[in-house]
Amino acid sequence: MTRVNAYAAPSEAAPLEKTTIERRELGPHDVLIDVAFAGICHSDIHTVRGDWGAREYPLAPGHEITGTVAAIGAEVTKHAVGDRVGVGCMVNSCGECDQCRRGEEQFCRNGAVFTYGSVDRDGTITQGGYSEKVVVTEGFVVRIPDALALDVAAPLLCAGITTYSPLRHAEVGPDSRVAVVGLGGLGHMGVQIAHALGAEVTVLSQTLSKKDDGLRLGADHYYATSDDDTFRSLRGSFDMILNTVSAPIDLRSYLGMLDVDGAMVCVGMPSDALPLFVGSLIGGRKSISGSNIGGIRETQEMLDFCAEKGIAAEIEVIPASDINAAYERVLASDVRYRFVIDASTFAD
Amino acid sequence: MTRVNAYAAPSEAAPLEKTTIERRELGPHDVLIDVAFAGICHSDIHTVRGDWGAREYPLAPGHEITGTVAAIGAEVTKHAVGDRVGVGCMVNSCGECDQCRRGEEQFCRNGAVFTYGSVDRDGTITQGGYSEKVVVTEGFVVRIPDALALDVAAPLLCAGITTYSPLRHAEVGPDSRVAVVGLGGLGHMGVQIAHALGAEVTVLSQTLSKKDDGLRLGADHYYATSDDDTFRSLRGSFDMILNTVSAPIDLRSYLGMLDVDGAMVCVGMPSDALPLFVGSLIGGRKSISGSNIGGIRETQEMLDFCAEKGIAAEIEVIPASDINAAYERVLASDVRYRFVIDASTFAD
Repeated sequence: MTRVNAYAAPSEAAPLEKTTIERRELGPHDVLIDVAFAGICHSDIHTVRGDWGAREYPLAPGHEITGTVAAIGAEVTKHAVGDRVGVGCMVNSCGECDQCRRGEEQFCRNGAVFTYGSVDRDGTITQGGYSEKVVVTEGFVVRIPDALALDVAAPLLCAGITTYSPLRHAEVGPDSRVAVVGLGGLGHMGVQIAHALGAEVTVLSQTLSKKDDGLRLGADHYYATSDDDTFRSLRGSFDMILNTVSAPIDLRSYLGMLDVDGAMVCVGMPSDALPLFVGSLIGGRKSISGSNIGGIRETQEMLDFCAEKGIAAEIEVIPASDINAAYERVLASDVRYRFVIDASTFAD
Repeated sequence: MTRVNAYAAPSEAAPLEKTTIERRELGPHDVLIDVAFAGICHSDIHTVRGDWGAREYPLAPGHEITGTVAAIGAEVTKHAVGDRVGVGCMVNSCGECDQCRRGEEQFCRNGAVFTYGSVDRDGTITQGGYSEKVVVTEGFVVRIPDALALDVAAPLLCAGITTYSPLRHAEVGPDSRVAVVGLGGLGHMGVQIAHALGAEVTVLSQTLSKKDDGLRLGADHYYATSDDDTFRSLRGSFDMILNTVSAPIDLRSYLGMLDVDGAMVCVGMPSDALPLFVGSLIGGRKSISGSNIGGIRETQEMLDFCAEKGIAAEIEVIPASDINAAYERVLASDVRYRFVIDASTFAD
């Protein structure tokens, strides 16, 4: 075991604090990564605060991790010391079930092991990327293309794949009319990716306060959902609505903006149930679905795509000591568009 | 104009009664049909009682119509006098929009004309199949294959296409695990069609009272949803759940029975909103969608498929004088599985 500097929540009610956590010795298929950057995802906050169920503490979150390979186990072939790499929301899975075999490890029949707060296959509880080092089995470590800097690449490991996967799954392309609901960490990636896939992209945001950013990121249109006219004027306008917000929305109004055969895909998770009028779906053979990150192969594909298209996250780099303040700003939607922790400050 | 015997509701609050309604003179593309049978669909009851919005009265419902061509307009080429034909839920559409051109007239951009209670393209209000004769433009008249008797074919025009279309749209086949919720007019068609498409079919019904029927119609399994064990034991079991009931269901419990990438398709329309936990969709990239009858081309395909596979509705033939009593039995789910009115009794 090695103890490394980290930031962790001591309980669901307390702020994160500087501490040390254990990292296992390198197994034959393990990769030791010197963390360079760790993105702050809204999920980190929900999880450490117990919103999504009880956890063991202390808990170091972080599943948008980039860094450099510092050491490899005896049988590692996929990565070498010095490689620029990333780790996302998962660090293990059974590798043997139908879902793992088709590269959809997030749906592993035996339960994917998530990067923090999850029971690993050896029985230990995983600890995330808010730390100096992380040990991950090679199959769950992806390559960061040279064209992507490690800081702006970090958020791609969750926000990038979470929006890329449903857009690709829906076969979005040059004929697609895509609306992205919410211009936050997820939304600002969704806009860029949908635009790069050739779609006509519309941002639906509460207000027009980020309109300039949205258009710069590749949106063709930008509407405020606080204006009822938006729902009337955009009736039947979209093939796909990518809903990135966790706040409850009025499904009927949004579904009304879908054209026949249109699909709303949700990647944000409101904790309360949303009222669904089935008639909103039947009239135009519409659907509402969910999407959950993406597999490892698709995550690599997404990184390569972003590198090729010149896409990255827009970030604000912070020292570890600012994590708790950053959490409050995330909750207040006061970030454009992702906080990324400089991992060199975990030791400060 | 011709006046013909019919049964119609004089108001939303009154039972149907014997009356006469007008049928237009044959236009060049019109077909005059001597109605042989008219099925009773739950939608008839909702519509005449004003559950789905205000209507003009008197209103003769009925959109599961079979009969024989009695006369044709000067330019009709699709049908000849004496042909065995059917009419379903639609009698007209613009014919020019993208949806009409792709054979999805139910999604006509200018509004499909429904068989009763709808404004026709000439401004008149349509009257349905509870009558001796009906005049319909040839494009909305389908051919009843010789292998199908006119009485058991009538319900195919709504219940058949309503279940056939989503099963085909989802590409159900020999590898599919399909659950049909509800064994009523729609469900008993869904079971037969899914079975004929090669799927492994499970019926999910409130009780086991119709189990023998379900298995005889082609189901492989039959479970009672009044038993909580059903939801536990069938967790993750289905690729598709075809929900034919209009009663509210607990979406979370049903979505839990879908496997990864599974789809629930709703063809029944509860009037109240159902609480939807988005998390029920995200975990397995699941979807909920709606489906609304099918186009004319697909309706003909369905009839040909049913004839080839030996599929038809199970019916109870009644005289027109029993319509109101039959309505009460439909509302009490006391029919196996469709009432069909003998049109020769409209004159009695």
